[in-house]
This record gives sequence, structure tokens and C-alpha cells, in this order.
Amino acid sequence: MTAKIIDCRKIAADLNQKTANEVSILKSKYVTVPKIMTIKIGNDTASNLYLKLRDEACKKTGIISKHVEFENNVSGSEVLDTIGQLNDDRNVHGILIQFPVPKNISSEKLLLKIDPKKDVEGLNPINLGKTMIGNESLIPCTPKAVLTILSYEKTQLQGRNVVIVNHSNIVGKPLSILLLNRNATVTVCHVFTDNLSKYSKEADILISATGVPKLISQEKIKKGAFVIDVGIVKTKDGVCGDVDFSSVKEKAGKITPVPGGVGPVTIASSLQNMITTFRNCIEETT
Amino acid sequence: MTAKIIDCRKIAADLNQKTANEVSILKSKYVTVPKIMTIKIGNDTASNLYLKLRDEACKKTGIISKHVEFENNVSGSEVLDTIGQLNDDRNVHGILIQFPVPKNISSEKLLLKIDPKKDVEGLNPINLGKTMIGNESLIPCTPKAVLTILSYEKTQLQGRNVVIVNHSNIVGKPLSILLLNRNATVTVCHVFTDNLSKYSKEADILISATGVPKLISQEKIKKGAFVIDVGIVKTKDGVCGDVDFSSVKEKAGKITPVPGGVGPVTIASSLQNMITTFRNCIEETT
Repeated sequence: MTAKIIDCRKIAADLNQKTANEVSILKSKYVTVPKIMTIKIGNDTASNLYLKLRDEACKKTGIISKHVEFENNVSGSEVLDTIGQLNDDRNVHGILIQFPVPKNISSEKLLLKIDPKKDVEGLNPINLGKTMIGNESLIPCTPKAVLTILSYEKTQLQGRNVVIVNHSNIVGKPLSILLLNRNATVTVCHVFTDNLSKYSKEADILISATGVPKLISQEKIKKGAFVIDVGIVKTKDGVCGDVDFSSVKEKAGKITPVPGGVGPVTIASSLQNMITTFRNCIEETT
Repeated sequence: MTAKIIDCRKIAADLNQKTANEVSILKSKYVTVPKIMTIKIGNDTASNLYLKLRDEACKKTGIISKHVEFENNVSGSEVLDTIGQLNDDRNVHGILIQFPVPKNISSEKLLLKIDPKKDVEGLNPINLGKTMIGNESLIPCTPKAVLTILSYEKTQLQGRNVVIVNHSNIVGKPLSILLLNRNATVTVCHVFTDNLSKYSKEADILISATGVPKLISQEKIKKGAFVIDVGIVKTKDGVCGDVDFSSVKEKAGKITPVPGGVGPVTIASSLQNMITTFRNCIEETT
């Protein structure tokens, strides 16, 4: 058996087409288009690439995406002031912070400062907390992308055994909550997990986001599993994910590739959230 | 082997003694004592018992605990107005809502209305979201009690296999996040889980909170496991928990009893949170 390779570029294109249609409808209704501001500190290569791709997607769908760029040595209070100004600016409908930020700046303070209704990444604690109690209005983009891929494949979640390999604030923790909201049985593994294989081999759905190339080998999965690869890392052999794709695809039921997998759907999910923040802003004042 | 039966009443008494000492120190420093208001709607028997026990504990530690009582047919907006008044009242240092509330009232709206700094139960989404990103200032009382019991027993969490049977907003979801914050490998099971035994039998630490009497039988646990019973239900044979205590204690390494287990520690944890909300209020204005 060879796994179905999920055409994530196609999913992303579909989502972006829908977003473009919505932008067009909203534009005729409100005579304005979504304008999103990204705060970028320093010059991280991977981050720059992601931003470039997202900006291209925004342009195609009619969303205006601008940056506020700071040097690495900017102070936290300066960034906070800028967020405050963007919160107050009625012509700005969404705010993102491009991570990572320098260690001397508190991510939490920045996220808490973003007006929750303009919080495109859904990472303000108030939006995370709402997600925890099942009110999912703005959810983080990578978990949203994973849910979208599962939903495109009409994957049953209730009662299924889902294993996530990642316990970060922006991927593993919110994704586990979102899957619990859908009544999956959820296990979260990570770098401290003893014997990952024991868990991963039982997973109906396995989601890995570690950045460790080829961590997920054929022996680590269950036959017929749906394997979603959130990892992406540049190696001397090119860009690859967490999954040993060529061998795992011979055993899995479905699999997402890298590149051209979760990444493009994450960008498309970010654009969907931009529509939500735009609506939050514009429909509140009209 | 017979399991060590955790003396949770002793843990609760220790915690309450520390709370009483803190109240006394705070009283001499600020010439005021914590005053906590509980909003109670209707007349739920189990809820009344819990409240009575908590009020007794408050009295012993010097915390003033008062109620605002509503009939079952009160409107949501009336309750929200009351919360607003309690938020503004400088002589009130903590607010709790006694659940369950009638179905026509939105729990989420009530929780969002509580000033986060006065949120004794740690259930305002902003406090839940902070917990999710590892800033644990006010955490829900039952999960806090479970962590306290584990900590009293000097239980290693990092890398251990923890299974929670409950995926509610106030127990399973926040508890899973708190355990991930401590680098445990966490599985959350619930009523939709297929073959609970498969997961529970692998758990180093098993925490059950279902209210299904004797759900956790001897075959469902691993030899030497730490079994924490959060369930409590009245049956014709008396009060019992989720765990078939008499048989499970012959196989487990450690076990909490019911009654006299997680319950008293939950109340003591609630009192600890009252000290935190008091400090939030009083230290902000002095």
C-alpha cells in the first residue's frame, strides 16, 4: 500500500480563492480592504521567507500587508508602544508579531498588548483561553492548518487516537485543546518523552512538529495512519520535514509532504484569520 | 503489595495552616483581611455541601467568605451587573461563581466578566490562556489540588506517562496543560475514548474524574501506578469515587481515597488562590 499524498498546495489555493472572494465582497460592502501590520524584529532567515510567502498570498487575495521593522536591539517598551498605536489605528485591522523575538523582550507582554479582536495569530492569552473553553474564534494558524487538512480529508476525530509530537505554546498545546474540543483521545509527546515509538505506533493520526529530520521512521507509525508533518528544516540534502517520507509513505494511509504540505495551508489559515479580525473591526463600528 | 494511601486530609490541613499564617501576616501588614464573594444561583445539593465545607475552611483561616444568592430564574444580565459591582468594590478581594449555573445563562460571559485579578477559580479565559503559555498565576482549583498532591509525594513528572480521564474545561483541559508545562507525556481520555484500558494500563500516573463509580478497576491500571481519584458520587452504598478502591489499592503504588482525598485539597487550593487574589488587589493599591 502506498499512502495518499495530500495535495496541500491545492487546499491552500482553495482557501485563498475563498479568501479573495470574501475580500471582494467585504470591499464592496464596506468600501475598504483588510490592512494587516506585522511587527518584525531583527533578521531571521526562515522567518523572512515565511513572511515573503505570506505577503505574496496577501497580495493575490487583495489584503494589504505591511511591516513595522525593528533592529534586534529595540527595547520592549518601544515595541509595546507601537502595538498600542496599531491597536488604536482604525485603519489597521490585524496585527501579527513575527517570532522569534530577541530574548530580552517578553513575548507574553507583546501578545497581551495586542487588541484581542486584531489578534491574527490567536496567541493573545485571552484568545487562547477562549479556545480552551471551546469558543474558537481566533485560533493559532498552524493548529488551524492541521484541523483544516483533517477536515478536507473528512477525517473522523471523535474517539480517534491522535498523537502530537510537540508541546509548544503555539503548536502542541493549543492543537491538543482543539482536538479535545472535537472529542479525540489526545496524547502529547515531546523531547522529554521516554520511548516515543510506544505512543506514535498506536496513533490513528500522528502530527509531528519537532524540526528533527526523519525522526518519524516507518517503524514509528501504525499501518494506515494519517501522518501530518509540521516540521520543516533545511539540511544539506535540501528542505525536509520530521517524517522519513519515502519509507513512511509505504505504510501510512495518508501523508502530507514537505515542502508543499502544512506550510502553505498555515499561510492560508493566517489569511482566513485576517478576514476574521477585519470583520471584528469593521462590523463593530458599522 | 498494598499501595500507600495518601493522607489528603493531612495535606489539606497543612495547606490551610499555611494559609492561616499568611492571613495573619497580611492582616498585620495591611490592617485588613481577605473578603471573598461567591455567586450562587439556585440550590444544587452537591454544590451546597462543597460551599459549606469551603466556608468552614475560610472561617478557620480567617478569610471572610460571603455569598450573593440568586433564584434559578435570575437573568444573565442581572448576574453580570452584580459581578461588575463586585469587581469595582475595593473591599472585595476575590470572586467565585458556584457551578453549575442554569442553562440559559452563559458561563463564559460570567467568567469573562470577573476581573482577572479577583478570579479565585482561575477560570477567566485570560487566566486560562496565561496558564497555557506557562504563566501560572491563578490556576483552577481541582488541577491545582492534583499538582499539590503529586508535589507532596515528590513525584517526578518530566517524561512520565500521565493519563487523565476527563476533558472538561475546569479539570481535564487545564490539568493536561499544567502537566505539559512540567514536561510530562500526557494523554487525555474521556467518554468518547475507545478502549480506555489500553491507555490507563500504561499510565505511571492515572487521574480519573468521571463520576462513574468503580470505572477504574484493577485490570485498568499498571502495577505500581500513582492513582488519583477526582470522582465523587453518592451511591446507595455511600460516597465513592471513580476507582474501585479495595481492589486497586492492592496493585497501585500510591492512591488517594474518596472521601477525604482530592476534595479537601481542592478546598485548600481554593483558599490559596484567595490569598493570591487578595495580594493582587491589596498590593496593587498600596
